[in-house]
Amino acid sequence: MAEEISIIPLGGREEIGKNMILIEYNKEILILDCGIAFPTPNMLGVDLVLPKVDYLVKNHDKIKGLLVSHAHEDHIGGIPFLLSEINIPVYGTKFTLGMIKKKLAAKSLSAKTQLREANPREKIKIGPFEINYIRVNHSIPGAAAISIKTPAGTILYTGDFKFDQTPINQELTDYYSLAALGEEGLLALLSDSTNAEREGFSTSEKTVAKNINKLFKKAKGRIIIATFSSHLDRLQQIIDATARTNRKLAISGRSMRENTSLAQKLGYLDIPEGLLINLNEIKKLPNHRVVFMMTGSQGETMASLTRIARGEHRQIAIHQGDMVLFSATPIPGNELAVSTTIDQLFAKGALVKYGSDLNLHASGHASKEELKMMLNLTKPQYFIPVHGEYRHLYHHALLAKRVGIPKDNIFVAKNGSRLNLSANKAYFGSPVKTGKLLIDGSKVGDVGPTVLKERQRLAQNGFLLIIINNNKVLDIISQGFVYLKKSEKLIKELKETIQQTLNKSPAKNKTILQNKIKEKSQEFLYNKTKRNPKIITVITKNKKE
Amino acid sequence: MAEEISIIPLGGREEIGKNMILIEYNKEILILDCGIAFPTPNMLGVDLVLPKVDYLVKNHDKIKGLLVSHAHEDHIGGIPFLLSEINIPVYGTKFTLGMIKKKLAAKSLSAKTQLREANPREKIKIGPFEINYIRVNHSIPGAAAISIKTPAGTILYTGDFKFDQTPINQELTDYYSLAALGEEGLLALLSDSTNAEREGFSTSEKTVAKNINKLFKKAKGRIIIATFSSHLDRLQQIIDATARTNRKLAISGRSMRENTSLAQKLGYLDIPEGLLINLNEIKKLPNHRVVFMMTGSQGETMASLTRIARGEHRQIAIHQGDMVLFSATPIPGNELAVSTTIDQLFAKGALVKYGSDLNLHASGHASKEELKMMLNLTKPQYFIPVHGEYRHLYHHALLAKRVGIPKDNIFVAKNGSRLNLSANKAYFGSPVKTGKLLIDGSKVGDVGPTVLKERQRLAQNGFLLIIINNNKVLDIISQGFVYLKKSEKLIKELKETIQQTLNKSPAKNKTILQNKIKEKSQEFLYNKTKRNPKIITVITKNKKE
Repeated sequence: MAEEISIIPLGGREEIGKNMILIEYNKEILILDCGIAFPTPNMLGVDLVLPKVDYLVKNHDKIKGLLVSHAHEDHIGGIPFLLSEINIPVYGTKFTLGMIKKKLAAKSLSAKTQLREANPREKIKIGPFEINYIRVNHSIPGAAAISIKTPAGTILYTGDFKFDQTPINQELTDYYSLAALGEEGLLALLSDSTNAEREGFSTSEKTVAKNINKLFKKAKGRIIIATFSSHLDRLQQIIDATARTNRKLAISGRSMRENTSLAQKLGYLDIPEGLLINLNEIKKLPNHRVVFMMTGSQGETMASLTRIARGEHRQIAIHQGDMVLFSATPIPGNELAVSTTIDQLFAKGALVKYGSDLNLHASGHASKEELKMMLNLTKPQYFIPVHGEYRHLYHHALLAKRVGIPKDNIFVAKNGSRLNLSANKAYFGSPVKTGKLLIDGSKVGDVGPTVLKERQRLAQNGFLLIIINNNKVLDIISQGFVYLKKSEKLIKELKETIQQTLNKSPAKNKTILQNKIKEKSQEFLYNKTKRNPKIITVITKNKKE
Repeated sequence: MAEEISIIPLGGREEIGKNMILIEYNKEILILDCGIAFPTPNMLGVDLVLPKVDYLVKNHDKIKGLLVSHAHEDHIGGIPFLLSEINIPVYGTKFTLGMIKKKLAAKSLSAKTQLREANPREKIKIGPFEINYIRVNHSIPGAAAISIKTPAGTILYTGDFKFDQTPINQELTDYYSLAALGEEGLLALLSDSTNAEREGFSTSEKTVAKNINKLFKKAKGRIIIATFSSHLDRLQQIIDATARTNRKLAISGRSMRENTSLAQKLGYLDIPEGLLINLNEIKKLPNHRVVFMMTGSQGETMASLTRIARGEHRQIAIHQGDMVLFSATPIPGNELAVSTTIDQLFAKGALVKYGSDLNLHASGHASKEELKMMLNLTKPQYFIPVHGEYRHLYHHALLAKRVGIPKDNIFVAKNGSRLNLSANKAYFGSPVKTGKLLIDGSKVGDVGPTVLKERQRLAQNGFLLIIINNNKVLDIISQGFVYLKKSEKLIKELKETIQQTLNKSPAKNKTILQNKIKEKSQEFLYNKTKRNPKIITVITKNKKE
């Protein structure tokens, strides 16, 4: 019996998103989380990014289960795709399973799936593994750290967490269970590095609640508040503030409506009778009695608040004096979209409240002091920072060094690496094949470097299509290259240039001729425009020739 | 004689970039600044954005001159284009004219241009206007506020400014001249709104110098420092820190090399003999004697530091332990590019120093307290916030209200609006046509909504080209749609679908047939892939039919 545990991240290292970590012991595998990542700006036309799971498909029979830490997309978004490849039981807390069920229903996968509820402090035996879900605070209910005990030692995976000493609508983190792991002896800690650059402690939801209430009291007219639809504690604060200021609440945005409805059904949201009304009813109320709660805090193109800012929402338009609250801060990459929305709202006469100074938002991730506390509660022998870009992992590793973990016991490892741990030694084994699977539309994985490169070229300069029939230039069609209505002379001159080339070169070889025309055209167009469209030449002939 | 002044912004309002303001008095026009803006992410393939200057071309004979406040691209970038349309004298301080000359030389425009040096405190008479350049602090030498005196009153345009009480290598702002305007009576103030959201005061360059020195002393190995190549004071600090720590300095990056050379020639940089060596020589020195100064602080794709981070710089590679300093903070929109560069540098073993906490950078723009100071020094009757997105203009207007400017005397006006001011009244006159001119390659202005929409469609889904000859599907060519090597079955099925359509519909009308094929293809492809490529059908026939 191998007395070592292997830790193999397939995603979530050197990136924020598509979290997935494998824990292997004695040829049996557990999967921790299965998320998606969002496309980066250069991934044109891509909807989602998944981790490649070739290794899992190959070792299907060894996989004992998928343990999910919480219901954010970068932890559950890949589950439908994974389950369509391999059918394994899925473990999670009640709320997490509820969100997963919703996802599977949308893909018609519910029938076959084995969903198993994991209650905090309830030991679960899966093969050689003994699992324990430990309650932590995060920006979604039902978040847990997961401890995995094996004969070779115990691993703790924090999932995403913060320590909120005054949580709203969540219980405190189960500090005892964390400390007990440290007392018994923890082999390795895999901890959330997202905010490892931030000094101090994360803000408490109680502070946010106070500030939201302050502004609700101050507002003389209508209130529009945007936040993350999965942040149920925040939604509860908004509901409470609405009730406290004798207002009514209407919701805009599909995910906001669905999440609120599901949460209310599962008992996670407490909405006073009659507080929630629909968009038509709320129009009849005077301004000082109106609250709209909606999506769009990240400037997402089709989200409610973004469409309202553009003047494109069919039911809600900004009135002078509306107070708009951004109860979120821009996720890296969304800054421009958010500030554009803010500008548009101001221009329409809204009073916009935004920016981290106002503390209308608190992060769901631990800052430095909490990360050090997690390290010292659990006192691991080995430390593996997870869930972060390289700089986050680096800063988290520095923290571990600072609290006394020896440098050689800290591993900042890439996706696909295999780290073998035991009480006596730690070393990297043979890596596992992984990578990014890009999803565009309904096809998975065919969009890769080739297609992206083609799209990037088209995005910059468009294309030009030259149609030649019977040795005559029949037509030139172009898209995204120049404004055709104002470029007739240019196209005419290009036709003449190409025709000259055709007349001079009676090449029988079609490919040679195509290349010649392409070269001449590129040269001509670059001289005239300094642009480089993709050029395609189509040569057809009479059948009889 | 009309006793009113018209203020007409053509750019720089509700945007950061392409600053250009017209001052009209009695049918005579002065232009304040002429900048470019950088393309927003949706402006695919666009290199630069200029303001439309139809109004200026139409009123060519009334324009008496272009007054330039300072040499940043968003204030001088449009000058070559403007001067190629209308030839007018250009005024600026010595350094500003030096930078403009360099620009004009690159476009072969120098011969015809009249460049006139404006020295601070030296009154300049231009027609009915009396101009005075007033020294201010900014992140480039030679920055000035410009006062324009007319019989109808005096206007002050601040240009970009901050109040640095301990500037490095710049003189103090000329507070007396500003206060004198307030004492004499200022009709209107046009002031820089860029940092109107920020509380307090901007950081002094002296603080930055102190922090740079501290890190230089601490560094055990090589130092790589990236900053803006036009920020000569910062370059001087880096040169001084290099000398102080007994190191040598090598420069990487064309604009950094050119600016340093020009600045040294004009006497703006003091470089000790022998401190500056080239990239080949510096390789021979031990690590603790090396400093590289370069571009790339904004993650610009082809800049030195960005290429080094990607491992693509031909002469410089990161060594374990190199200290990399970002002496800049990301301009909104560049956050992702900068953090990607930081991650790559960490992953290569560099110690990266970045983030506003470290105060390795100070903004060149005034924060709230300085903006209020400018208002109270100059005590204008009317206030027009400029140089900002809508939210910046809004916050700046709030500040003006707070110091006592009546609400009705504050104008947050759009580009193209005409504001007519006199001591007795202020009102909006007939607007002036303006807008954005997009430049792609060497052609100006043809890339507009149509071409951009085409490019955006191509970027998301690519295109598909169906070639039909003699009623047979000859070929299907596609780019950016699917990965062709793995999509042979799909393309084959599409061909068959189209052939069936052709066989069933012997339509003589080519357009009707093209549309039919396009519809069928779109339907087929969407069912199979949920993607929507641009479809183009080319139908050719034998000549004899």
